[in-house]
Amino acid sequence: MQNFEYWNRTKIIFGKNTEQKVGEETLQYAEKDGTAFRVLLHHSGGSSVKSGLIGKVKDSLKAAGVGWVELDGVKPNPRLSKVYEGIELCRKEKLRFILAVGGGSVIDSAKAIAAGVPYSGDVWDFFERKASPSGALPVAVVLTIPAAGSESSVSTVITNEQGSWKRGLNAECIRPVFTIMNPELTYSLPAYQSACGICDMFAHIMERYFTKEPNVELTDELCEGTMRAIIRNARRIFSGGERDYSARAEIMWAGALAHNNLLSTGRVSDWASHAIEHELSALFDITHGAGLSIVFPAWIKYNIKEDTKRIARFAAKVWGVDGAYYDYEQAALEGIFRMKNFFKSLGLPVSFADAKLDTGKIPEMSKRAVTFGPIGQYRKLNEADVEAIYRLAAE
Amino acid sequence: MQNFEYWNRTKIIFGKNTEQKVGEETLQYAEKDGTAFRVLLHHSGGSSVKSGLIGKVKDSLKAAGVGWVELDGVKPNPRLSKVYEGIELCRKEKLRFILAVGGGSVIDSAKAIAAGVPYSGDVWDFFERKASPSGALPVAVVLTIPAAGSESSVSTVITNEQGSWKRGLNAECIRPVFTIMNPELTYSLPAYQSACGICDMFAHIMERYFTKEPNVELTDELCEGTMRAIIRNARRIFSGGERDYSARAEIMWAGALAHNNLLSTGRVSDWASHAIEHELSALFDITHGAGLSIVFPAWIKYNIKEDTKRIARFAAKVWGVDGAYYDYEQAALEGIFRMKNFFKSLGLPVSFADAKLDTGKIPEMSKRAVTFGPIGQYRKLNEADVEAIYRLAAE
Repeated sequence: MQNFEYWNRTKIIFGKNTEQKVGEETLQYAEKDGTAFRVLLHHSGGSSVKSGLIGKVKDSLKAAGVGWVELDGVKPNPRLSKVYEGIELCRKEKLRFILAVGGGSVIDSAKAIAAGVPYSGDVWDFFERKASPSGALPVAVVLTIPAAGSESSVSTVITNEQGSWKRGLNAECIRPVFTIMNPELTYSLPAYQSACGICDMFAHIMERYFTKEPNVELTDELCEGTMRAIIRNARRIFSGGERDYSARAEIMWAGALAHNNLLSTGRVSDWASHAIEHELSALFDITHGAGLSIVFPAWIKYNIKEDTKRIARFAAKVWGVDGAYYDYEQAALEGIFRMKNFFKSLGLPVSFADAKLDTGKIPEMSKRAVTFGPIGQYRKLNEADVEAIYRLAAE
Repeated sequence: MQNFEYWNRTKIIFGKNTEQKVGEETLQYAEKDGTAFRVLLHHSGGSSVKSGLIGKVKDSLKAAGVGWVELDGVKPNPRLSKVYEGIELCRKEKLRFILAVGGGSVIDSAKAIAAGVPYSGDVWDFFERKASPSGALPVAVVLTIPAAGSESSVSTVITNEQGSWKRGLNAECIRPVFTIMNPELTYSLPAYQSACGICDMFAHIMERYFTKEPNVELTDELCEGTMRAIIRNARRIFSGGERDYSARAEIMWAGALAHNNLLSTGRVSDWASHAIEHELSALFDITHGAGLSIVFPAWIKYNIKEDTKRIARFAAKVWGVDGAYYDYEQAALEGIFRMKNFFKSLGLPVSFADAKLDTGKIPEMSKRAVTFGPIGQYRKLNEADVEAIYRLAAE
């Protein structure tokens, strides 16, 4: 087991009607000098408005005496231009707190704004690894889509439209201070969005699960148990359980645990599949979760000779493949087969063809994925490896 | 799933040589006005001195420019008189931070002191539920015994020698700000102490696992996985693996996760077994973990008709009892049998006779256990129930 630090400071407020607490929770971050407290209220302007959630949030802020300036229009694969707009707005209006109401895109946009406000340079520097944020405005969240895990993570991923670069930043200072999660808010999610979210959180666990660190049994158990719970509850939701509170609640809580680093304690995570996927969603603007359901099975398959036993364990513990009837490699392949079937059952693509993606872009994407050098920790991948994985996904 | 708040702010610094970081971590809590920073260094004065750990901690504090006043002599089942002494010392010396170096007893003593310093009344008020702490000094930990989970919990349990009362307090303000865990520090633990610690953390999970809340599948998975990891790694340690780093590390991390409330998210915990045990250790001064290995199997057995399926699931998922060969009740009984065997294999008592406890005290203990009314949530227990459980444990 490797040395680690684990410090998850995000206060989770979970359950029915919890969005009504947003005002009082936010107020705790008010300046103590008695000046009026105003926050940046950041959202998509779409479903969260239509559903009445933004109205409820405003009511709660108003009741607590918290003011706000609104910035909506965040899109999936959140854009750098919107981040610049948010930074300018916070500076101009002297806002010292950001409330993100939405899913991963809104939260990631909010985090980038938060890191950018106190920085004198270009916020994109952080994503190009030219600088590290030394501080950020506090960010809080009312979550509407269980997926990215951004609600209690240190990560943000932003797309720079100039050149279609999609890049990530990890920094402790952008971890949300609190996150409100009401599973009922997810009842009305379109099925495809639920499915993409489920694949995203599942992938966050797999990135942590596939490790060459021996002796991380407790963390393995936590990963496997969370994956099993996701599979079973996803099936409940997709079998007519769109309004099944407990299934929605399990999925929502799993999404946060998947990405708060509990499931990587004592080990090094991989993240190559995420990097390989980012090229897909940067180029084709496909939803991140749908890109992952294409890339991840191919990535595992590419590693099957490299670490057969680990993948066979994954097949046994997560997919119920009975190892007694197979050799390790057969068990591993059966696990991948079942995983693809699971993704398909949620309506997700598992190949380039399923999503009608142009395989002609594979050489370009392979080159871009390794811009900063080989990717991955479980197994270092160079351009040729990445291309081979895209080819497997294209089959 | 019930609504919940989950907020685990303790920074965990885990791994080899991490005790060397205690000075720099502590320094972050220094007053910013430049006055000399001195802390209360609280420990048992026993093994942590002999092992050289206290010396290393002092070296690290000195290197960081942090001063200290020492208070040692904490005993297992930590005493109120020592807490009073600590409160007085902090006030007299104007100490604003407490560093606990040791196991659960030292940490619990430190927490009680921390809550008592800013309180004008008698700190025992908190334990008699006459008052709640409105604040506390920050407490930090260098952990030497994986057991109580106090290193990242909101709990402290103190024994009032006047009348042998053992009572607990839960308050967010006493949760440690950081905890340093080096599994190597546990190599030299006496086997009996390792065993008691393992039973204690196992019991913390069972108190959370036995719930009547339906649909808490993810939390169930996390509980079951952690229990399985504890069982396997305890066996490694007790099969000649006293210096097996990874086994010690898994146990140490499991002890913290067992009691930081992750494993009770979405459900109500029970805690009757702890209350029943507290009477044992208050009266007989038996180690808490050894009291639990006597009480817990009896408590489960007492509930077997009440919730046969749940206990059968516990038997199947945690103890590998194959449900196909048994009816639910038989499976449940087999699970309890295997649990007792596990405790015995660690050298722990599983009955009054094993620990040579006087069964004549059962009526008195039963009365005292329900001083504040019926105990437990999974099933409310009155005096007669508690007595029946003690009788089962006496068999």
